[in-house]
Amino acid sequence: MFPSKIELEECAKRIAPYIHNTPVLTSQTINNISGAEVFFKCENFQKMGAFKMRGAANAILQLTEDEKAKGVVTHSSGNFAQAVSLAAKNVGLEAHIVMPNNAPQPKKEAVIGYGGLVTECEPTIRDRETTVLKIIKKTGAIPLHPSNQMEVIIGQGTAAIELLEKCPNLDVIVVPVGGGGLLAGTALAAHYFSSNCKVVGAEPKGVDDAFRSLKAGKIVGNDNPKTIADGLRTMLGDENFPIIQQFVDRITLVEEQEIIDAMKLVWERMKIIIEPSSAVALAPILRGEFKGQKVGVIISGGNVDLSNLPF
Amino acid sequence: MFPSKIELEECAKRIAPYIHNTPVLTSQTINNISGAEVFFKCENFQKMGAFKMRGAANAILQLTEDEKAKGVVTHSSGNFAQAVSLAAKNVGLEAHIVMPNNAPQPKKEAVIGYGGLVTECEPTIRDRETTVLKIIKKTGAIPLHPSNQMEVIIGQGTAAIELLEKCPNLDVIVVPVGGGGLLAGTALAAHYFSSNCKVVGAEPKGVDDAFRSLKAGKIVGNDNPKTIADGLRTMLGDENFPIIQQFVDRITLVEEQEIIDAMKLVWERMKIIIEPSSAVALAPILRGEFKGQKVGVIISGGNVDLSNLPF
Repeated sequence: MFPSKIELEECAKRIAPYIHNTPVLTSQTINNISGAEVFFKCENFQKMGAFKMRGAANAILQLTEDEKAKGVVTHSSGNFAQAVSLAAKNVGLEAHIVMPNNAPQPKKEAVIGYGGLVTECEPTIRDRETTVLKIIKKTGAIPLHPSNQMEVIIGQGTAAIELLEKCPNLDVIVVPVGGGGLLAGTALAAHYFSSNCKVVGAEPKGVDDAFRSLKAGKIVGNDNPKTIADGLRTMLGDENFPIIQQFVDRITLVEEQEIIDAMKLVWERMKIIIEPSSAVALAPILRGEFKGQKVGVIISGGNVDLSNLPF
Repeated sequence: MFPSKIELEECAKRIAPYIHNTPVLTSQTINNISGAEVFFKCENFQKMGAFKMRGAANAILQLTEDEKAKGVVTHSSGNFAQAVSLAAKNVGLEAHIVMPNNAPQPKKEAVIGYGGLVTECEPTIRDRETTVLKIIKKTGAIPLHPSNQMEVIIGQGTAAIELLEKCPNLDVIVVPVGGGGLLAGTALAAHYFSSNCKVVGAEPKGVDDAFRSLKAGKIVGNDNPKTIADGLRTMLGDENFPIIQQFVDRITLVEEQEIIDAMKLVWERMKIIIEPSSAVALAPILRGEFKGQKVGVIISGGNVDLSNLPF
């Protein structure tokens, strides 16, 4: 029922030529503050700046030749749009990206820079989906989902496989949770590639749907998603939720100020650029929630609008 | 007359336990833009966030026991203040840091955080020097200079030794020049530890004293130093100038906008935080000045006031 260890191993081999095996960094300052031994898996150094490259590459590389000829389509204004564009370009196929007409210009330019074909739509879920359907009808393009598609989930899990190769004795891996693809993939990886490493999802209080979904035993949504962590303003899906239920230890919630403080601390002390969604995973570690433990943290990405910083 | 290869080798061994052998990073994007193959020696990941740790450590570790008992003193509001504080703390001696009373609060706090004893003075060169002299009279503390002292110059050269160990075939190393300590140290290192690697100093047009000094054959100052690269608003000294004359290929000048653009490019694409002084060294590379060459660049530091960014 769940993807097997072999599927994850084959995925890691499949995408290896198209991704970076990103470095694992440490910081004495952050160890001191947290009382834990923290290992940062730096997906901010991944191609196009985020882990999303892994899932996009895995999904695209498994298309049949017929499907490849038709291209792919997704709707996203964030990292997945860039990931699909670049992963498609790498193997020479077309990527249609549906973006709301109010998306920031730099995000559109990034997608175009990676070769994506942008179609603008009204900034409503309904118009996004209608526009995607129109493109599918016209081109036959294969739709890709940023978090609720098994090839994508498995792809995202490869970051944790690499982390566990370098740090085999982790007690826990903390992962930001938005759509749930990274969390589900990481949980599968920890299940198959560690002896006893737990996986904890970190979620902003303002979009606590994963927290509430696990309590309720069914997927619940967000009435008014509100957080600086723009990558996490989404909800779980039916492909990743059962994996999260089965293999994730728990979800921990963080305040907005904790996110900003964690982000600033990493910029100031580690001299690396991480996006707010990544800071969400560090925040509970900084407040001492994992004292005395060896903790992996997936730094999900580093794509930040430098002209609009929270500090 | 000039320090020997053995002196540099002994320095590298002496300071090794107190510094990081920082990583060397590359960026396909920056290679494409510059037409060169660029190797970033990341001293922004150095302890206290800048190469200055090397020279401070080397100077302090060579004090006699008598001198150590008296402590050290310097005047600086920048990276050298933090470097001296931390290097002194590492071996258990007192560091007196004279800072102008208008220095930003975060800089004072950083020095205090590393154990430095701050004495405030009026923000004039004269009062800085008077205050240092008073401290020497009172405590017998040994004065340390951020760039014009041979132990410091040799210490700064160890960054290039490490870079050349990892990249032995560099055609050139580009280094920001302010007080001249890093430039002179790098030039010595390239002379002794490479077969034919040139060293080029990069300097903001607004403080082009090194450029003019080399032309004039004698040290000239800056009338009105004006640049965003706050670490470079100083002039050469009589200890480092002869080394620079002998071993540096040339000085190249950069515009303020080039500094800001280079800094932003590195933040956005490499996801690492570099300070404006480091961007000065990258700027001439980006405009194609080293096309077709293997270029090392010393990323001097990553200490930036995040609440006051130029973009």
